[in-house]
Amino acid sequence: MQTLKVDLGERSYPIHIGEGLLDQPELLAPHIAGRQVAIISNETVAPLYLERLSRSLAAYSVISVILPDGEAFKNWETLQRIFDGLLTARHDRRTTVVALGGGVIGDMAGFAAACYQRGVDFIQVPTTLLSQVDSSVGGKTGINHPLGKNMVGAFYQPNAVLIDTATLNTLPPRELSAGLAEVIKYGLICDEPFLTWLEEHVDALRNLDQVALTEAISRSCAAKALVVNADERESGVRATLNLGHTFGHAIETHMGYGVWLHGEAVAAGTVMALEMSQRLGWISVQERDRGIRLFQRAGLPVIPPEEMTEADFLEHMAIDKKVIDGRLRLVLLRRMGEAVVTDDYPKEILQATLGADYRALAQLKG
Amino acid sequence: MQTLKVDLGERSYPIHIGEGLLDQPELLAPHIAGRQVAIISNETVAPLYLERLSRSLAAYSVISVILPDGEAFKNWETLQRIFDGLLTARHDRRTTVVALGGGVIGDMAGFAAACYQRGVDFIQVPTTLLSQVDSSVGGKTGINHPLGKNMVGAFYQPNAVLIDTATLNTLPPRELSAGLAEVIKYGLICDEPFLTWLEEHVDALRNLDQVALTEAISRSCAAKALVVNADERESGVRATLNLGHTFGHAIETHMGYGVWLHGEAVAAGTVMALEMSQRLGWISVQERDRGIRLFQRAGLPVIPPEEMTEADFLEHMAIDKKVIDGRLRLVLLRRMGEAVVTDDYPKEILQATLGADYRALAQLKG
Repeated sequence: MQTLKVDLGERSYPIHIGEGLLDQPELLAPHIAGRQVAIISNETVAPLYLERLSRSLAAYSVISVILPDGEAFKNWETLQRIFDGLLTARHDRRTTVVALGGGVIGDMAGFAAACYQRGVDFIQVPTTLLSQVDSSVGGKTGINHPLGKNMVGAFYQPNAVLIDTATLNTLPPRELSAGLAEVIKYGLICDEPFLTWLEEHVDALRNLDQVALTEAISRSCAAKALVVNADERESGVRATLNLGHTFGHAIETHMGYGVWLHGEAVAAGTVMALEMSQRLGWISVQERDRGIRLFQRAGLPVIPPEEMTEADFLEHMAIDKKVIDGRLRLVLLRRMGEAVVTDDYPKEILQATLGADYRALAQLKG
Repeated sequence: MQTLKVDLGERSYPIHIGEGLLDQPELLAPHIAGRQVAIISNETVAPLYLERLSRSLAAYSVISVILPDGEAFKNWETLQRIFDGLLTARHDRRTTVVALGGGVIGDMAGFAAACYQRGVDFIQVPTTLLSQVDSSVGGKTGINHPLGKNMVGAFYQPNAVLIDTATLNTLPPRELSAGLAEVIKYGLICDEPFLTWLEEHVDALRNLDQVALTEAISRSCAAKALVVNADERESGVRATLNLGHTFGHAIETHMGYGVWLHGEAVAAGTVMALEMSQRLGWISVQERDRGIRLFQRAGLPVIPPEEMTEADFLEHMAIDKKVIDGRLRLVLLRRMGEAVVTDDYPKEILQATLGADYRALAQLKG
């Protein structure tokens, strides 16, 4: 087992990573103050892991709330079922909410923990690669609104994160690839040597090699923890974690939540950021193509939806959270392994990026 | 104008109190970082004060969201209208949410500010006596749930609070009295000399004497700010502010939100706390009756609803936020002007308190 510490003063918390952690009660106990525990999971994950996790929590009074699976259910109505469950079981403000599932469960359970009686304890047990390397670290919680993704939420830190790498054995390959999109992102924004490592290990990762997965998760969490440490409230460097996300969110919003997986939208969105960085002269055509090739080898889409026009992108991006006073800030690559956040670029380059022939770029790599 | 400072480190904020503050743009400007402002108000207050406040915000791009009036609308559906308004107008994360109205508006606008894009700036402009002396100070925001009051919310501090005492000229007398319940509470929990002052000025307050109102609001806010300073997260001394609230919440929940005003329920609930404190031998019969008499002179109910049984009270109190691991903590009076939070009392005394003849007590004072 490896343990990272996310250092946020009195709200610091550990991330434990290793095989079989679900069966280790001693990792949970130090983070549970009361006698009540509420496990929040979904219809896909609960049949696989709820019983094992409940056994590790046998010392407590445990309820579970099982939600429907998918980004399409990341809304108030579903969140309400968590509050209903907590109130019906009369959980008080010393209850501990445990998220067992992917990013959607983590975001909703975390937001419920942030809001229930104005804030209760919270533990993350992420079971998808995406949530293990991304959404379980950094304190972002929330739900979607019909007019925008993650528009309602809170910054709320967990008391601990438990990553059992063995849970990836039951993850559908498409979701494993979606998680790899965020893993590759860390290489692009702050760790060029990790990109080289990924080029050497991307096939092993897709084949569920546990050693490779452990290394990739640790390195990704460490990268994210480092960035979050430096900037908890996303005013500065943290925004670089959104590489590909502004374009990606536009894709998710336009297509409807859940049609593209988040990681898939991030992959295609990051390809657009690579293209724009190349058009600005910051990276070479070869470097752009290196990134595209890696996403392709990870089993990810590199072409935005054919049906989306330049106007579609601009419309969706205008209400993105990265907009400050009407200027569109984008995360771009100053060079491979170094991302910057900037609104200082010619508008024409953004327009050319939105109108670029990504099908041709993808085929060149095929 | 008087200005109090609520000292919470980097989240400290000023409370300005005085006549005509709505028309002083220079009090708002220092607390607005972006160019967008969203005024949240209701159908009762907006026709009276929205235009004046908007004029003071003429330098910004201002939208308003007008909600239906009343505790019965303090729910997710109404909150959603704030998010709808912000997103439709494309407000970004530098927007400032301004609450113009009573406690319900303050709680909902504050919770919306806490959650919108995971947190935006927030200014309170309370227009009822209750919200001026209570809910605009202390950072509590939230909404009700069908199974309990204020069960979903956040601790979120405003950037500033503006109290224009002249807004009380349009407040219905019943609501003025409801506000006085909280004013009297401050005397009971921490300021015995203020009780004496109130006995001398309660008629002047009900007659809208501006000098008396200013003094009562200042003294109440100062008392609350002092308690909040000492204990932001309600783990200890802050809980004394809930004198009468545990019994009062049970009344509100049982009767249905909005049937009793919050202050009315607090008054009757505080009379129950006085009765229990007397039964514990902590205050005398004369002191209990002194409190009852003051609530009566303020125009407040001192008898819990006839229809509520002991069992009704216990059922509703069991999911109150003050419950820690199943033990019911209550705020009681150790003596007049000193409240304590305790779960160390004979169960029989609580039962006797719930079954006491409040009608007889009230008539003795009539």
